[in-house]
Amino acid sequence: MVTELRPDVGAVVLSGFNAPLKLESAPVAEPGPGAVLARVDLAGVCGTDVHLHHGHLSIPLPIVLGHEGVGRIWRLGQGVSTDFSGNPLQEGDTVAWSSNIPCGKCYWCVVAGERTLCETRKVYGVNQRFDEFPRLSGAWSEAIYLQPGSAIFRVPGDLSPEHVIALGCAGPTAVHGVIEVAGITVGDTVVVQGSGPVGMASAMYAHLAGASRVVLVGGPSNRLLLAREIGVGDVHIDIFEYPGAEDRVRLVLDATPGRRGADVVLECAGVPAAVAEGWEMTRRGGTFLALGQYTDRGAVPLNPHLITRKELRVVGSWGFAEKHYLRHIEALPRLSARFDLRRLITRYRLEDADKALADMGSGRVMKPVLDTSLRSQVDTPD
Amino acid sequence: MVTELRPDVGAVVLSGFNAPLKLESAPVAEPGPGAVLARVDLAGVCGTDVHLHHGHLSIPLPIVLGHEGVGRIWRLGQGVSTDFSGNPLQEGDTVAWSSNIPCGKCYWCVVAGERTLCETRKVYGVNQRFDEFPRLSGAWSEAIYLQPGSAIFRVPGDLSPEHVIALGCAGPTAVHGVIEVAGITVGDTVVVQGSGPVGMASAMYAHLAGASRVVLVGGPSNRLLLAREIGVGDVHIDIFEYPGAEDRVRLVLDATPGRRGADVVLECAGVPAAVAEGWEMTRRGGTFLALGQYTDRGAVPLNPHLITRKELRVVGSWGFAEKHYLRHIEALPRLSARFDLRRLITRYRLEDADKALADMGSGRVMKPVLDTSLRSQVDTPD
Amino acid sequence: MVTELRPDVGAVVLSGFNAPLKLESAPVAEPGPGAVLARVDLAGVCGTDVHLHHGHLSIPLPIVLGHEGVGRIWRLGQGVSTDFSGNPLQEGDTVAWSSNIPCGKCYWCVVAGERTLCETRKVYGVNQRFDEFPRLSGAWSEAIYLQPGSAIFRVPGDLSPEHVIALGCAGPTAVHGVIEVAGITVGDTVVVQGSGPVGMASAMYAHLAGASRVVLVGGPSNRLLLAREIGVGDVHIDIFEYPGAEDRVRLVLDATPGRRGADVVLECAGVPAAVAEGWEMTRRGGTFLALGQYTDRGAVPLNPHLITRKELRVVGSWGFAEKHYLRHIEALPRLSARFDLRRLITRYRLEDADKALADMGSGRVMKPVLDTSLRSQVDTPD
Amino acid sequence: MVTELRPDVGAVVLSGFNAPLKLESAPVAEPGPGAVLARVDLAGVCGTDVHLHHGHLSIPLPIVLGHEGVGRIWRLGQGVSTDFSGNPLQEGDTVAWSSNIPCGKCYWCVVAGERTLCETRKVYGVNQRFDEFPRLSGAWSEAIYLQPGSAIFRVPGDLSPEHVIALGCAGPTAVHGVIEVAGITVGDTVVVQGSGPVGMASAMYAHLAGASRVVLVGGPSNRLLLAREIGVGDVHIDIFEYPGAEDRVRLVLDATPGRRGADVVLECAGVPAAVAEGWEMTRRGGTFLALGQYTDRGAVPLNPHLITRKELRVVGSWGFAEKHYLRHIEALPRLSARFDLRRLITRYRLEDADKALADMGSGRVMKPVLDTSLRSQVDTPD
Repeated sequence: MVTELRPDVGAVVLSGFNAPLKLESAPVAEPGPGAVLARVDLAGVCGTDVHLHHGHLSIPLPIVLGHEGVGRIWRLGQGVSTDFSGNPLQEGDTVAWSSNIPCGKCYWCVVAGERTLCETRKVYGVNQRFDEFPRLSGAWSEAIYLQPGSAIFRVPGDLSPEHVIALGCAGPTAVHGVIEVAGITVGDTVVVQGSGPVGMASAMYAHLAGASRVVLVGGPSNRLLLAREIGVGDVHIDIFEYPGAEDRVRLVLDATPGRRGADVVLECAGVPAAVAEGWEMTRRGGTFLALGQYTDRGAVPLNPHLITRKELRVVGSWGFAEKHYLRHIEALPRLSARFDLRRLITRYRLEDADKALADMGSGRVMKPVLDTSLRSQVDTPD
Repeated sequence: MVTELRPDVGAVVLSGFNAPLKLESAPVAEPGPGAVLARVDLAGVCGTDVHLHHGHLSIPLPIVLGHEGVGRIWRLGQGVSTDFSGNPLQEGDTVAWSSNIPCGKCYWCVVAGERTLCETRKVYGVNQRFDEFPRLSGAWSEAIYLQPGSAIFRVPGDLSPEHVIALGCAGPTAVHGVIEVAGITVGDTVVVQGSGPVGMASAMYAHLAGASRVVLVGGPSNRLLLAREIGVGDVHIDIFEYPGAEDRVRLVLDATPGRRGADVVLECAGVPAAVAEGWEMTRRGGTFLALGQYTDRGAVPLNPHLITRKELRVVGSWGFAEKHYLRHIEALPRLSARFDLRRLITRYRLEDADKALADMGSGRVMKPVLDTSLRSQVDTPD
Repeated sequence: MVTELRPDVGAVVLSGFNAPLKLESAPVAEPGPGAVLARVDLAGVCGTDVHLHHGHLSIPLPIVLGHEGVGRIWRLGQGVSTDFSGNPLQEGDTVAWSSNIPCGKCYWCVVAGERTLCETRKVYGVNQRFDEFPRLSGAWSEAIYLQPGSAIFRVPGDLSPEHVIALGCAGPTAVHGVIEVAGITVGDTVVVQGSGPVGMASAMYAHLAGASRVVLVGGPSNRLLLAREIGVGDVHIDIFEYPGAEDRVRLVLDATPGRRGADVVLECAGVPAAVAEGWEMTRRGGTFLALGQYTDRGAVPLNPHLITRKELRVVGSWGFAEKHYLRHIEALPRLSARFDLRRLITRYRLEDADKALADMGSGRVMKPVLDTSLRSQVDTPD
Repeated sequence: MVTELRPDVGAVVLSGFNAPLKLESAPVAEPGPGAVLARVDLAGVCGTDVHLHHGHLSIPLPIVLGHEGVGRIWRLGQGVSTDFSGNPLQEGDTVAWSSNIPCGKCYWCVVAGERTLCETRKVYGVNQRFDEFPRLSGAWSEAIYLQPGSAIFRVPGDLSPEHVIALGCAGPTAVHGVIEVAGITVGDTVVVQGSGPVGMASAMYAHLAGASRVVLVGGPSNRLLLAREIGVGDVHIDIFEYPGAEDRVRLVLDATPGRRGADVVLECAGVPAAVAEGWEMTRRGGTFLALGQYTDRGAVPLNPHLITRKELRVVGSWGFAEKHYLRHIEALPRLSARFDLRRLITRYRLEDADKALADMGSGRVMKPVLDTSLRSQVDTPD
């Protein structure tokens, strides 16, 4: 028997690809053993949400979107007394959560130790249906039902919800790719291709890991300006100012010791053509990380001779798992002390989720965030 | 003052691309301090020699070809009393030598620790002119002048010169790529693309490193037959029998646990198209080594989405340095105890170097070897 | 409701430390969902069992001992149709199983990826009580109830149960320590301290991983003789013949290139004093693995200056988890093709478990194995 | 023929252990091919100098002390036109240099890639005699003759000589140990044992590498106060306030997530007893770096069981080589932007080298520096 809490809450539901989102009213279930019910304060809008809306990925419908969220504990299910790190949890505590729950039993979870590759993992806001229990499984909502096995993190006292949501899933994604897989280290010269949320988070992590020089290749100019203003990147190359790959490669080489190229190139552009360009920017013996190739756009021309001759290490990283989210939370106080993360955010009401999606798609803003406090009840008139 | 030894010796000289090679008579210099003069017993013919002959690489002319050799110490220059490993050296000792001498001072030698990337290294049989001192700088000759800084190795007592020459430069190349860069380990499922000398050496090293299953994808059938007979590979896929990449990928998946694909794929085919095929054969989180892309044939279609989604590690390896040659020499007793290496060899006279080159180019034989004992003097009639 | 199968089976029960073991009759439960019931054919006796019997470790009583076993599927619980690797499972299949079940949720399981460090893992034959369901939780029994979450492996067709039990837990322990943590690679010179089961398994894995030279330091002479006969180790140093550590260090240095010491030293002796000796045997920049220090015997004199000056890498490895067992099973056909594993075994009846323990303790035999077929029913007179 | 430059310069010479140092006048040789003559501006006094003075290490006498220096190019030898990184060099440029010149030919230089282990490397201020050419081979002098093969670095424009000398050899030593060997990464909890120059440099590098928390265990209080003031360390434990190891271990555990202990412990104390304490502070699966055990004080009690049970990785690091110095120079702008390095320094005249040594030995100051501008000529009266 599921007990329901009153009153119902508002949730943004995707019922048809490319169709307008709908703010619907939904009942709230009392959390069962091991589960946690949280009120959502802020929910992030991610580039993946744009793809989901367009039906580029195979997902069930209807769903409540939103795989990035921060909120407060509403109710703790039986047996839940601490967060993932072992900190005590109480109702009212500010929390964030990893968006996915790997199965914990398969080859990828147990043998390969790559829980991000688990084929049956649950992902909030992506593969949990709105018409099945517990319904509230996306963060674009006033509440979310965090199922047993969720990695929930109490937000450290000196951080505000804005600090957490500003990087959204780009933060733990960068921890996985930039820190764990690419392995930036002190003194590295790093190129970041792309200045969207993943590029910004990756560049910040490159700084945090002690890179001696970070070259940010991106655009449009407002994004690069913002990056400059908050101290992200040492050299900025505007792809609209330098539309030719050859020019950009030359500028990157100019910015690296001995014109050898970068120790590490982080591809966060999502454009297949960035890969060939990035290989040219990487020094011999260097590392190229494909972090942005989430969509399968098919084959593009690439020269494999470069891999042999330059002894490249070309690596990929897909999403993140609990351990990356944990490390992100542990690193967040350092990041937020160094960069004014809140400047990345633009707030929207839940009702304006469509507009937030559109602004994300166009790149007009850096990071749209749905703020549930801007409208507290679905049935309340503006 | 260079002192010359009598009589002159015969050396195979390349004076013009695509032109016939010429067996010329050359004077022998007494080795200076730090140098060593060696009689060559056996010299290997490598696929790279075919490319050199065709002028595919930028090299000076004229040169004595031959970057693979084994022979006996003729004269030791002043100050040379041990081999690279510290074993005492005497005239008459059987020795092999690393084909290249890195500068030891540049970024690649000192900082990156990748001496194979040294831009000014000397390479016997490739970039040392025949018309300059010490002239005898290639192994296709009755003698070779090993310059100071050469890594010379006394051949362990239980090994014959045939054991050393059978794998030629493919041996240390595989040590570098397969063992050091790709890092095969016990229990791995390994695919080797290509059954020429590099593919054979790589598959042998995969076995030696404890791979649980080695799938050899190559051809023509005589090469696979030889592989089977000497115990190289557990599964053999003939590319002439299965000309379609899709079929080969399917067969490889069938041969891997859970049809996940191979833990490691070693590309030793030298054909750009093998790379896309190899990426399909690699399991998620697995490693793909581009070991055979020595020639720049330009870009081919490759799907970078696979790198991100499958979290591939795509690495390259270029040639080898002293440490790889050392490890190869240390591993050779194990290899030769396990595989009948001598079966790889086909012998030719120095005079028949053109034929040896042609047979290498056509793949008619596995490993042509010039045997100086088949004709001891340049001026002796057949 | 637990359904019981008839008739009862015999199980060797430890009810009091240092007291005689007792072969008791126990009921057999029909396996619940996710569980598997197996008949045990062979069960290994391990040095740890000697410690358990003496009460050196904190364990609950009474328990059925036995963390090493191989047997046949008796009944499959609901939902179990494949083994851990995805191979189909049927009643009658020969299987082995990992002795422990990590929780899958804690910091060690999820974040550190070191499931061997899980503090709440279940261990068959060690921390599962005989007086609680499912009672049959040790391998020294005619049957074992494999709880949900167990990693069960169908034994490959070309292997007999003897092949599996011969190395017992030493096999996956060596995979973890020797292959994963120490990381032996092709060409390494390796010293193994200790010639008991863990030393033998470690030396075998060093061979399998391509070590160029394996020096086995152990005793008594019958163990070294056996090692020699089955091809384990290239150099054998008898600690009874050379009782002084200084002599042994000298002999090891003599056996390594340039008298630099071994690339890797694997401590499998279990004696604290072996550590100081092993540090002397390790070359500068080399690796020392503490694999045998399972019992806390307190501090011994060690010189930390050696770690700094020699740039040692001193690593430890504790037990194993599913992935190591999997890799061991995958490597076992190679191991058994190379070494006659069955020669390690000495068989005992279940009734003679006390004698098997005593013989293990004294080192009189290499690997005592309880063979349930030597006496099929607990109530049958001899 | 060596050409001498006029006038002679002053150099601090060690002629007898424990005897007073003497400021002697010495002739200056015109640099030969590949060499560089530099005027010394600032020279560091290191703890090792104290040991050298006491005769704790086997060195030749007489020598000019000083393995840390920064100065200006006086004369460039033939063939020298760039620094180690390829930057153009001119007379008057501010430069620093790596204190040692590995041979570049031995097993350690070529095979192991650990040039810090080279047995025949030249070390300025340590093993170059004052009574042999080129005499001026230590930095406690108005000039130093940098022999061919020296790694010389032009100091980046935004750095002053003070920034370079403040960390002295502790900077590249920390790069080697903390960054390369221990491998601190973003989010790590790090303990630093010792608050002398090596401890300070290591803690700074831990911060630079993105550690989430740095616990500095040291003393006396003035050193910890300085650390606090310049932002080194997040938690400070005074060993004089907490003289018991048990208390310090408890405090460290309190400061780590889940009281698991630190991910990485950096021993920079130089006291053997710190090692046992550090092992207690390291979390299971964590890393302990022995960076300070430069002097052989013999064995101390250590419990090897901890290595096995906790799966520790205990590593050592010895000195540094060119690549570490290079990375230090590349990281220095980041370090100096973050920490006020100049506050570490206390200046002395060359004549007061004895006092500088004494103050270093007593720990009264953090970093004594000999400033040649405080007294320009040896023959000038005060």
